[in-house]
Amino acid sequence: MSVNASRLAHELDTLAEISDAAPPAVTRVVFTETDLRARAFLKTLCAETGLVVREDAVGNTFARWVGSAPELPAVGTGSHVDAIPNAGRYDGTVGVLGGLEAIRALAHEGFRPRRSIELIVFTAEEPTRFGIGCLGSRLLSGALNGSAGAHLLDRERRSLDEVRQAAGFVGPLSSVRLAPGAYTAFVELHIEQGPLLERRGVEIGIVTAIAAPAGLTVVVEGEGGHAGAVLMPDRRDAFLAAAEIALAVEAAARSSGSVDTVGTVGVCDVFPGAVNSVPSRARIEVDVRDIDLARRDAVLARIASTIEEIAGRRRVSVRTDVVNADPPAQSAPAVVEAIAAACEARGVSFDRMISRAYHDALFMARVAPTAMVFIPCRGGISHRPDEHASSEAIALGTAVLADTLARLSHADA
Amino acid sequence: MSVNASRLAHELDTLAEISDAAPPAVTRVVFTETDLRARAFLKTLCAETGLVVREDAVGNTFARWVGSAPELPAVGTGSHVDAIPNAGRYDGTVGVLGGLEAIRALAHEGFRPRRSIELIVFTAEEPTRFGIGCLGSRLLSGALNGSAGAHLLDRERRSLDEVRQAAGFVGPLSSVRLAPGAYTAFVELHIEQGPLLERRGVEIGIVTAIAAPAGLTVVVEGEGGHAGAVLMPDRRDAFLAAAEIALAVEAAARSSGSVDTVGTVGVCDVFPGAVNSVPSRARIEVDVRDIDLARRDAVLARIASTIEEIAGRRRVSVRTDVVNADPPAQSAPAVVEAIAAACEARGVSFDRMISRAYHDALFMARVAPTAMVFIPCRGGISHRPDEHASSEAIALGTAVLADTLARLSHADA
Repeated sequence: MSVNASRLAHELDTLAEISDAAPPAVTRVVFTETDLRARAFLKTLCAETGLVVREDAVGNTFARWVGSAPELPAVGTGSHVDAIPNAGRYDGTVGVLGGLEAIRALAHEGFRPRRSIELIVFTAEEPTRFGIGCLGSRLLSGALNGSAGAHLLDRERRSLDEVRQAAGFVGPLSSVRLAPGAYTAFVELHIEQGPLLERRGVEIGIVTAIAAPAGLTVVVEGEGGHAGAVLMPDRRDAFLAAAEIALAVEAAARSSGSVDTVGTVGVCDVFPGAVNSVPSRARIEVDVRDIDLARRDAVLARIASTIEEIAGRRRVSVRTDVVNADPPAQSAPAVVEAIAAACEARGVSFDRMISRAYHDALFMARVAPTAMVFIPCRGGISHRPDEHASSEAIALGTAVLADTLARLSHADA
Repeated sequence: MSVNASRLAHELDTLAEISDAAPPAVTRVVFTETDLRARAFLKTLCAETGLVVREDAVGNTFARWVGSAPELPAVGTGSHVDAIPNAGRYDGTVGVLGGLEAIRALAHEGFRPRRSIELIVFTAEEPTRFGIGCLGSRLLSGALNGSAGAHLLDRERRSLDEVRQAAGFVGPLSSVRLAPGAYTAFVELHIEQGPLLERRGVEIGIVTAIAAPAGLTVVVEGEGGHAGAVLMPDRRDAFLAAAEIALAVEAAARSSGSVDTVGTVGVCDVFPGAVNSVPSRARIEVDVRDIDLARRDAVLARIASTIEEIAGRRRVSVRTDVVNADPPAQSAPAVVEAIAAACEARGVSFDRMISRAYHDALFMARVAPTAMVFIPCRGGISHRPDEHASSEAIALGTAVLADTLARLSHADA
């Protein structure tokens, strides 16, 4: 197999340099100038490879290697290139540049696809800007409809509709939704973002299910005042209520009965934000996930009832918005087996596993038979500048992906 | 007395419009363009009044009405015009524009000062930018020396030395310190920022002591990671530790044994600040005050030991910097009595009282016999856009201040 590991590593390096953070950190927020430069870099590579490039109204980018039966549903692969603030360089990008390299490797070998093979670069997998993850694949799958999506706001209260048009992506957002049966299969290559493959010394993970994520925005309104003059019994401190809510999220996740439940408060904004002013408002963003939907929803219910108790006791008002509460995804057995067959054919060790992180595959699974290929990453570390996957692991995952795409391209429906 | 209440109210309105927040909120952070515009407005008014204007190396502004015995120590009055984010329009400004109006009213009556009367506009009473309150009066009093002050950093890590020079204030910061005996007395007019005068229906408060403030910066370093992939038992979440510390500050203040103890966390920054990322770092700013120094220091000690317990249990490292831990100030009996005599002479009701908020008078008390004149403000509200003092109350406070300055100008040393 002619996967060019050094070319791929070099392209990952180049992409990492397109960033708003100092190296080795990567920050690439959707529809910033930096994000648009990353997209231009990718489209150039796709064009050089001879792929047919198309962008939809929300900026999802499709690069198609046209097969000998172009009328048949295509085989999709891909991931994302946006990165949260101060992230690493492999999350998402491995699936995009690895997907492209898989296509180049197959072409170099003289392989001719029957079904077309299409690389997809999904817009805004990360929730950084609009508060909701997998924006592009949500719209593609219909999990989010165009009119609801258009009104999502960033922190500067600019709408998705305004921002994507300013970035050059026009046309109705409703047009993003995929036609039924557009893909015969979808396979996403990704770093594991967990420690299991490395710990076990296994080369490839085949994802059989993706955990169910939920996101909440919680805004607490209390009463501000002078930090010297307002006596403690008279206070309605919004930040202290938010602090208790954050601790309640942790307690609810820890007491779910399963280690698979996680709960996080990653964002906390305090208003007015002065050392000598009692906070009048606080806003936190809550993330809860579980591979079991009922257990996750029980945790959400417990958080909601604790919020009510805190609000009453502290005499603050709390508004909770459910940004998303998605069900888990099950992989398609046929796609899982195609990946397993590819591993076996080249003597690569693999494990079937669950993904606790979510991915665009969570939504692609709603509209196409889907599975994922995981490669190990050092220490399971992700969403940090020291995120790392070896170029050997990336090349091996890319080779397995290429074999899988080739098998699926020639498979019957 | 010819205090011009409507002119004074109009000037307070004009000053409130020089702001970086939407009305009625006022934001005026030291050495921003907005702050410099406010200073220019004040200097113009002082020049029109015929005062001799001088600015020192940190931007403290002195406007002197030269007395018939210019060689004698002067009588000082004044306050500040900087405002925390989303503040009101009366905090500080009443003491500055009221001080100027007091001088104009005396001049209009034909009063001739013996000792010079000097209006001082102190730089950065609010700790917003450099984390420490009363920057100008600290340097004037020697409570902060010039070389330590020069190295204070704002959130963009620009030093005070760099920022003040960029704003046009040059010369060594060590030159700011006042010569011994520069002032025979200092009187600051201010809104109460508490509810007592309004509740009691009393027109004037005479401050006999100012509570002892302390400020801490607490930085928690934990370990970041992916909010989906890092399991709860493996986490070292910096924000959750900070949330517990904030609640510990509240608990320590509430259990001090006195209602006069207050503790506040008004600032919380979370890093990297993404909904799907476990916080690796959090930074909070803590404010603790009490009229009793030993009791305040006992609260600080209790907070420190709780931080140690939290850091150990959550496996995070915590660095606590004491930004300031000032003793309380006692007013000078002679100045208190001059204010009381001014109130009695015009039949104004007054109470002697404690100030829980600190003011530039806290530091001026170290270098001059000092007291403060408080006027009521609605509901005791301050550091909020709905902060309010009636123009009648402001004019009355200004008249009492004018009488007091006149008495002190002709008093023996």
